Amino acid sequence: MKNRTLGEKTANELIRLIRERGYGTGEKLPNEYELSTLLGVSRNTVREAVRALASRNILDIRQGAGTFISQKNGVVDDPLGFSLMEDRRKLVEDLLQIRCIIEPQIAALAAQNATLQDVAILGDLCDEVETLIRSRQDFMQKDMDFHTQLANCSRNMVMSNLIPVICEGVMVFSSVVGEQEFDQTVKSHREIFEAVRGRRPSDAQQAMLFHLLYNRNRFIKGQDL
Amino acid sequence: MKNRTLGEKTANELIRLIRERGYGTGEKLPNEYELSTLLGVSRNTVREAVRALASRNILDIRQGAGTFISQKNGVVDDPLGFSLMEDRRKLVEDLLQIRCIIEPQIAALAAQNATLQDVAILGDLCDEVETLIRSRQDFMQKDMDFHTQLANCSRNMVMSNLIPVICEGVMVFSSVVGEQEFDQTVKSHREIFEAVRGRRPSDAQQAMLFHLLYNRNRFIKGQDL
Repeated sequence: MKNRTLGEKTANELIRLIRERGYGTGEKLPNEYELSTLLGVSRNTVREAVRALASRNILDIRQGAGTFISQKNGVVDDPLGFSLMEDRRKLVEDLLQIRCIIEPQIAALAAQNATLQDVAILGDLCDEVETLIRSRQDFMQKDMDFHTQLANCSRNMVMSNLIPVICEGVMVFSSVVGEQEFDQTVKSHREIFEAVRGRRPSDAQQAMLFHLLYNRNRFIKGQDL
Repeated sequence: MKNRTLGEKTANELIRLIRERGYGTGEKLPNEYELSTLLGVSRNTVREAVRALASRNILDIRQGAGTFISQKNGVVDDPLGFSLMEDRRKLVEDLLQIRCIIEPQIAALAAQNATLQDVAILGDLCDEVETLIRSRQDFMQKDMDFHTQLANCSRNMVMSNLIPVICEGVMVFSSVVGEQEFDQTVKSHREIFEAVRGRRPSDAQQAMLFHLLYNRNRFIKGQDL
């Protein structure tokens, strides 16, 4: 460990405080004055620590309203350095390869581990994507939300943070390809959802693998045209 | 997209510049004055952009020496928000679950895609881990390097950035468990390496799966004691 400034140490103390007190997403932190008392440092140091955690998407500073636990769970923008990778086509292919490795397993875990509430949220997202597709609206964000919720259903905390990063990478960097496969998306999502709800891990896994391979093949083919 | 400050825009321009000119890891950037000319902004704005990219581990500011491309490939510290997760035992279990899903596939891809140079580096790391173990020295960092190099061998750029994050998480948060399985590590690494060198993807995959399951079972058992 290298030398740490007081601000960095205080940021770590603040993380510990957040964990110990079990603050959840969107909850408001005590104000600067209270934090300075709780952590035994000056308000300037508190401010430095809060800013550092905001830059890591752990906290969310809303001018005039206070400081809140960020919705982003401490996952920073572009956490895995995608923007530095020169070959965008290869980046998307590599991301799709990872999805084909991870997400079928996630679907299987989801079918095994999801709570009833998890399944209800997944079902709502399935409906929302379908509605958007049928009315020819942009469904990319909700599509990502479906895959993220499936990761939540797996009850593996790391998957919940990793999948949005991977999905968003595909969305951002493959935007050139554009044209979307409507019917197949509706059908595959529905199959995956039904398998999760019916507690059929193997079916969920296979439906996800088909869904991803289908999209991957379309991407690779689209690029060759 | 929300409103961006000039500093943020300049940071993105700077990333584009780095990509276009193909600056590699460890290379030195032009000085502030040159960058300000190249990007058409003030030196203050350049400084703001450089600081922002340093905080994202894209650049490395060395006082008195200049600004360099960071060794960390833009992967920030704790990119997936592990430090926020309260249940450390579950975090390690989830990380080990992900390793069991991803790394056997990585080993198979490595056996298929590694260049001769990739294989040579992997072999050196295999030797180094073995030497450290035989002389009873700390081998955790080199162990991680072995797994990271295997990810490099897969020739999937995202895996190269993801695997160190996952491995480091296990190392940091399971440090309580401590006691290490020396002989099994030497034997498994050697088996994986030989399968990669011999272009036997299936053998590499199985050897990795055994290696990880063995460690995972030890972790889970150790926690129950």
